[in-house]
Amino acid sequence: MIGVFDSGVGGLTVLKSLANALNTEEFLYVGDTARLPYGNKSPETIQKYTQEIMSFLKEQNASAIIIACNSASSQFKLSNFEGIPVYNVIDPGAALAIKKSKNKKIGVIGTKATVESKSYDNKLISLSQEVQVYSQACPLFVSLAEEAWVDDPLTNLVCYRYLQPLLHQEIDTLILGCTHYPLLSSAIQKVIGTQVQLVDSGQALSEILTHDIQSEKIPSDQKKQAQISVGFTDPSKHSLKWAQEIMEPIPINEFLHIKL
Amino acid sequence: MIGVFDSGVGGLTVLKSLANALNTEEFLYVGDTARLPYGNKSPETIQKYTQEIMSFLKEQNASAIIIACNSASSQFKLSNFEGIPVYNVIDPGAALAIKKSKNKKIGVIGTKATVESKSYDNKLISLSQEVQVYSQACPLFVSLAEEAWVDDPLTNLVCYRYLQPLLHQEIDTLILGCTHYPLLSSAIQKVIGTQVQLVDSGQALSEILTHDIQSEKIPSDQKKQAQISVGFTDPSKHSLKWAQEIMEPIPINEFLHIKL
Repeated sequence: MIGVFDSGVGGLTVLKSLANALNTEEFLYVGDTARLPYGNKSPETIQKYTQEIMSFLKEQNASAIIIACNSASSQFKLSNFEGIPVYNVIDPGAALAIKKSKNKKIGVIGTKATVESKSYDNKLISLSQEVQVYSQACPLFVSLAEEAWVDDPLTNLVCYRYLQPLLHQEIDTLILGCTHYPLLSSAIQKVIGTQVQLVDSGQALSEILTHDIQSEKIPSDQKKQAQISVGFTDPSKHSLKWAQEIMEPIPINEFLHIKL
Repeated sequence: MIGVFDSGVGGLTVLKSLANALNTEEFLYVGDTARLPYGNKSPETIQKYTQEIMSFLKEQNASAIIIACNSASSQFKLSNFEGIPVYNVIDPGAALAIKKSKNKKIGVIGTKATVESKSYDNKLISLSQEVQVYSQACPLFVSLAEEAWVDDPLTNLVCYRYLQPLLHQEIDTLILGCTHYPLLSSAIQKVIGTQVQLVDSGQALSEILTHDIQSEKIPSDQKKQAQISVGFTDPSKHSLKWAQEIMEPIPINEFLHIKL
């Protein structure tokens, strides 16, 4: 079983990418909705919460752990937790952006906390000395995704407000550095233009995980189709409904109330 | 000392109203930033957190407790906690709206959780049988307030999107049912028109508390000026900076790291 966690429902965009790519695996998703969001919490608090969830996933016999949360990814830098391989969303996103970008002018959008942490900037610079990184916090994007105002002139205006400075920098690649943002990718693409390639960390991570299962670094569950359990630390009606909407058409096999 | 609490910084708009009206009192503000927001959490979780904070304020010898959080207000209905008088933001806001409204068509805006809880609706209907309540969730408003996009055409557009259905109902009074919304009151007023009176729960609460101190229901601290301590359960740089901006020009005397 592959354990995937986030502070809330956003990480389900990552789970969806993984479930599409790895359709013979079991997944257990933990959304820490009782304590979301992590973005504006201190590093110590985020580290504590992250450790608690990883301990829980270890108890459930996870063969790999995916940190599908940018804030937690930027606070947990190790590639394993008590012997279990751990994957974050920042490293694969940064590596894929470097691979895709021709002019090495890369944009990063995320929450205020992710942008201020400079996690993507540091990773990108560590991968390529010639890279130039332009980052922009987009605090309204999560609410717009929650409202499902996806194909909407108002969303286009907000996108334009946030993305205009990046357009002026002539970036050719844009990292969606928040797990909610793939839900707005069509509006973002419309404003930023088709000459800019969007990088979705969930997709980048799927490629790496597919490789690690094929090379038997991680054992395969060898199911007939992906088995998906989604748990929340505080399962509200709203989060359950939204989880189903994000995962569609992939069915969620069971909902759990997770007690850490 | 009067204890005031909220899940985050939003309740500081209530503290500001109180400190302006009651400038001889000591205030201790608790923002539960380690666990914010409460809005999308379950009633049981909100009740647990609320009890923890009220126990803390009791230990600090609070003479009164103000629940400056709509989600917590809708879950704690009692008017005292272990002998200490407790005030919420819903009852005074509803009472003032009934007093101000002539046609008894009252609008309520708030977070999705506040609107779905029908706390204001139920209170308004209990106060007046002839009242008609029209409510609208405005999830983007908190982010807009955080961005400080206050005098901004984009904010006007979002206001128009949310408030248009209320305009059609010919409301003459609008309750700002979220502690962040007073920060956007000028944009809200511009869109809804000057014929609609805005009701800010902080101001409504100040009137009641002033009365209860004058009538000695609550003892006065009799200081030369308001003494304000602001504490967060997770004090990030961002929350400290924003707290100062909201309270301006009222000085915050000390910042605390609150451990519940």
